[in-house]
Amino acid sequence: MRKLLNVFTLFAMTMSVLPQAAAQNRRAVDLLVLGGTIVTMDGTRRVIDDGGIAVSGGRIVAIGPRDEIQRGYTARKKLLAFGKVVTPGLINGHTHVPMVLFRGLADDLDLQEWLTKYIFPAEAKNVTETFVRIGTRLGLAEMIRGGTTTYCDMYYFEDAIADETAKAGVRGVLGETIIDFPVADNKTNAEGMAYVEKFVSRWKGHELIVPAIAPHAPYTVSEAHLRAVRAFSDRTGAPIVTHISETKRELDDSVKDKGASPVAYLDRIGFLNNRVIAAHVVWPQGTDIAILKRHGVGVIHNPQSNMKLASGVAPVPKMITEGVFVGLGTDGAASNNDLNMWEEMDTVAKLHKVFSGDPKVISAQQAFELATIRGAQALHLEKEIGSLEIGKRADILIIDRDTLNQIPLYNIYSDLVYATKGSDVQTVIINGRIVMRDRRLLTLNETTIKTEARALRDKIIKSLASPAPSQ
Amino acid sequence: MRKLLNVFTLFAMTMSVLPQAAAQNRRAVDLLVLGGTIVTMDGTRRVIDDGGIAVSGGRIVAIGPRDEIQRGYTARKKLLAFGKVVTPGLINGHTHVPMVLFRGLADDLDLQEWLTKYIFPAEAKNVTETFVRIGTRLGLAEMIRGGTTTYCDMYYFEDAIADETAKAGVRGVLGETIIDFPVADNKTNAEGMAYVEKFVSRWKGHELIVPAIAPHAPYTVSEAHLRAVRAFSDRTGAPIVTHISETKRELDDSVKDKGASPVAYLDRIGFLNNRVIAAHVVWPQGTDIAILKRHGVGVIHNPQSNMKLASGVAPVPKMITEGVFVGLGTDGAASNNDLNMWEEMDTVAKLHKVFSGDPKVISAQQAFELATIRGAQALHLEKEIGSLEIGKRADILIIDRDTLNQIPLYNIYSDLVYATKGSDVQTVIINGRIVMRDRRLLTLNETTIKTEARALRDKIIKSLASPAPSQ
Repeated sequence: MRKLLNVFTLFAMTMSVLPQAAAQNRRAVDLLVLGGTIVTMDGTRRVIDDGGIAVSGGRIVAIGPRDEIQRGYTARKKLLAFGKVVTPGLINGHTHVPMVLFRGLADDLDLQEWLTKYIFPAEAKNVTETFVRIGTRLGLAEMIRGGTTTYCDMYYFEDAIADETAKAGVRGVLGETIIDFPVADNKTNAEGMAYVEKFVSRWKGHELIVPAIAPHAPYTVSEAHLRAVRAFSDRTGAPIVTHISETKRELDDSVKDKGASPVAYLDRIGFLNNRVIAAHVVWPQGTDIAILKRHGVGVIHNPQSNMKLASGVAPVPKMITEGVFVGLGTDGAASNNDLNMWEEMDTVAKLHKVFSGDPKVISAQQAFELATIRGAQALHLEKEIGSLEIGKRADILIIDRDTLNQIPLYNIYSDLVYATKGSDVQTVIINGRIVMRDRRLLTLNETTIKTEARALRDKIIKSLASPAPSQ
Repeated sequence: MRKLLNVFTLFAMTMSVLPQAAAQNRRAVDLLVLGGTIVTMDGTRRVIDDGGIAVSGGRIVAIGPRDEIQRGYTARKKLLAFGKVVTPGLINGHTHVPMVLFRGLADDLDLQEWLTKYIFPAEAKNVTETFVRIGTRLGLAEMIRGGTTTYCDMYYFEDAIADETAKAGVRGVLGETIIDFPVADNKTNAEGMAYVEKFVSRWKGHELIVPAIAPHAPYTVSEAHLRAVRAFSDRTGAPIVTHISETKRELDDSVKDKGASPVAYLDRIGFLNNRVIAAHVVWPQGTDIAILKRHGVGVIHNPQSNMKLASGVAPVPKMITEGVFVGLGTDGAASNNDLNMWEEMDTVAKLHKVFSGDPKVISAQQAFELATIRGAQALHLEKEIGSLEIGKRADILIIDRDTLNQIPLYNIYSDLVYATKGSDVQTVIINGRIVMRDRRLLTLNETTIKTEARALRDKIIKSLASPAPSQ
């Protein structure tokens, strides 16, 4: 009976045979998502069977049982999600998007060797605005295909990254790097600060882009420059994206050189505020977690990157318990080696179980929270994204439930975290705009992206065989 | 120029316009795989660019540069792999295939609670021959789609599993469970031993199926029964599939009850031989690793299952260094929750790096070895499978190289282990037979499988809501 009803409704919607009178009473919106199990991630973690979502002006204006939504709203554009799962878009809290072009360039090395022998030389020889644009398009295409709708970035030529991201219709907290040595786009701190000033004022208030300032790490940026970053953030409201306490070596050096852990040092110099987004925090000491909590710092955990570089295991269960805002990230694809948030969710649950010896630690639901609502908190965007609720941005995934790896289904969060693959994501909506439909990218040209990326690869290989250019 | 040549060759092969004279000198075989980068996993780990493989009677009769193969061999059936990667089929060294039907039934629990409160009751109420056949088909379909060509199993009604596996054209080392309590197919040890006697004699010598005896674990099978298993294996040559030292609790109980670790106990009672395939071995003590090496026991490491159940981290790098045959497995999909060997490879490399603190431990190439040639050694089948070499069974994958997550490519092993997904596997050949072509299953009906599995799921949920049936 219910099946018959669905078939009829489908027919009715497709053929627009609904009585005019009824249609006239309904509010016209931009887009309706109809049918499917909606995993809202709202405050009560409501799951709606056979639900519906109405979208207008890039935001969710109604969400509930499908029949209610259909009674109240009408739209020319409809996405049918019968038999599928509808979730908030995933939030990749930390990456360096153009580094997809270095994916697999050097693996199975420790962070120092990997950075100084391979990545820094490869960057010195190859990073230009063109490189950054091609890499960003490649990374954005991979992220959309995997259901990531918001990402937080730190790289060079961030203005070009913002431009590509906005064109592709993806949401980004994008941080221009500040670092105390000459890099591709800026040769001095003064140049970098001038760049970021222009960058932030250009993009501030954009509906997709949150421009940010990104001091690389406490060990690569001087105290004076870090203070200037904080002052800039206070003046402009720009988030501060940074790396903190990624390795034991960073911790040891900090204790030796500054007499404090990286977190305690940053607290001491007045750097931390509730706009800071700190990647890693693998080695918090003493009161570090309390400091992060007190300042409202967002922490982004990158389990696969930390594993691959043997950086350590961040005390994520403890940070969550103590009320720190924690999100999840892939890190750059040069260290992971992909931008797949489904594998990070699967890994974060499994890693902390075995590391703590407690299989109840980081449940499937918590892992999904880290990639959605908790990720939004860590990026200080929880009022805008991270859940499907009235008033929030319409960043929505429709996920296939018919692939073999998902059958059968007993528990929706278990299925999403332990069984769903990136390739199961079928349709992606960001800010109310459909950017992938039935696995076809609508805002990016995949063929061109692949051709350009492969051409650049050949150039990168040649560049590494030749001596470094003088700065 | 090379591109032009390829296009011409393709045209020539398709249209059969090659001169008759040349064709007459070539040996007719069943199947040719032409083009692509062949990752052989042979003794020298040879990688052949633009390679070719000739297959006859289910075995590889020639492998080398494509032009050589094309000069020497002809076949009606040809698979073109230009621009793709060709590898040995993956070996899933440990699973309980029908348990895919319990995927996601209960998660985030420790092994004892998970087994005794959820899995054993669910099995008691649901496992029949029909259940096993439906679950096996579902699991086989998932494994083929992910490029697994050989798997090692332990479950009930293993004769039905063998029947389904042979029909699907998949290779299996299939062990009928021996356990000291009444189970679905056998109520006593005598019944179990009689079943296994018939089972092994029925399947022995089959080109796909290696029938095996599978005593569940040293803590669920008595010493006398374990000795009888060993005698059965000596008499019939059947492999012995078992679980050893999965948890700290198993180790502690063994030391308390038997005065020795599980491995030392099994050595003492004369159970171990070079046909044993031992899953897990998370907690080897003292000379346990040397004992396993001395007897030629194969060990199957299940990183994701061990993580999810918080069982611990097996000392795999040490076992490899000491010369133990180690392979890789998913374990049952009720504890993992999938049958995806690509994720196990990715995880095994990353887990041991972070656990040891050494990012050089378990390189990408070693991880790929664990799923191919080392996996074959652990199943005692290294003369038949695990690499692409003349004389070996033709178990071959053709893998797409054109998905975004694989671009660009710098290192073939890094790409396979850290970036390739199960969904990138395009075509699967087992024993010379094409079982999946361009993502379409040729030996199994996916639609029927899904329908049957979903119907069973509803039955399983109902069964768990009602009281347990009396045995």
